[in-house]
Amino acid sequence: MTERDAARVLAHPEAAGIRLESVLHALSDPVRLSIVRDLAATDAELACSYFDLPVTKSTTTHHFRVLRESGVVRQTYRGTAKMNGLRREDLQTLFPGLLDSVLAAAAAEASRLGGLAT
Amino acid sequence: MTERDAARVLAHPEAAGIRLESVLHALSDPVRLSIVRDLAATDAELACSYFDLPVTKSTTTHHFRVLRESGVVRQTYRGTAKMNGLRREDLQTLFPGLLDSVLAAAAAEASRLGGLAT
Repeated sequence: MTERDAARVLAHPEAAGIRLESVLHALSDPVRLSIVRDLAATDAELACSYFDLPVTKSTTTHHFRVLRESGVVRQTYRGTAKMNGLRREDLQTLFPGLLDSVLAAAAAEASRLGGLAT
Repeated sequence: MTERDAARVLAHPEAAGIRLESVLHALSDPVRLSIVRDLAATDAELACSYFDLPVTKSTTTHHFRVLRESGVVRQTYRGTAKMNGLRREDLQTLFPGLLDSVLAAAAAEASRLGGLAT
């Protein structure tokens, strides 16, 4: 790996370093929860630029960093794009059923509030 | 209800006003999560003074307020004691399985970390 490549590898917690409190915090923001719902709806990795979020670009970057540093998403560079994927297997191994129940709750809330919520 | 009684009734969100993001935020703090785990382990209501928490009294009060205002616990005065109970039914109706999966995840994490976590 060249120095330039190393600089472009983003820091992630190992699975054993993922903490429930950090995961719940990451999921407790409506913008971050909407990102996670979009990622959960596809098997593909999605570029940050895919998401049409009602916040500034720097806030978007902040939200993705919180998701990455908590262990909820894995971010990798592909060319100039930062790609995002849910760490489903790591989360399911550590906290069985948790992500699914949060996603179901988010869907229930969105349905109940008629699209007012994420 | 006398004025004095009214002042002692604490504000809670109705079930329809409980928001997933607020619930997840309330659960994302280790002290609050430990309170919820203790409450989940009993059918009884527990006084704030029951909990032996590694924080100051004012911080303890803050944590209980966050839990109450998010809809996770119901607080009522009994004499001079503030009693706390989990709003299990409201949460289960709104977000089926969510509380149980968080409690299971908290237990798994505590077991995995050998008592280092809540």
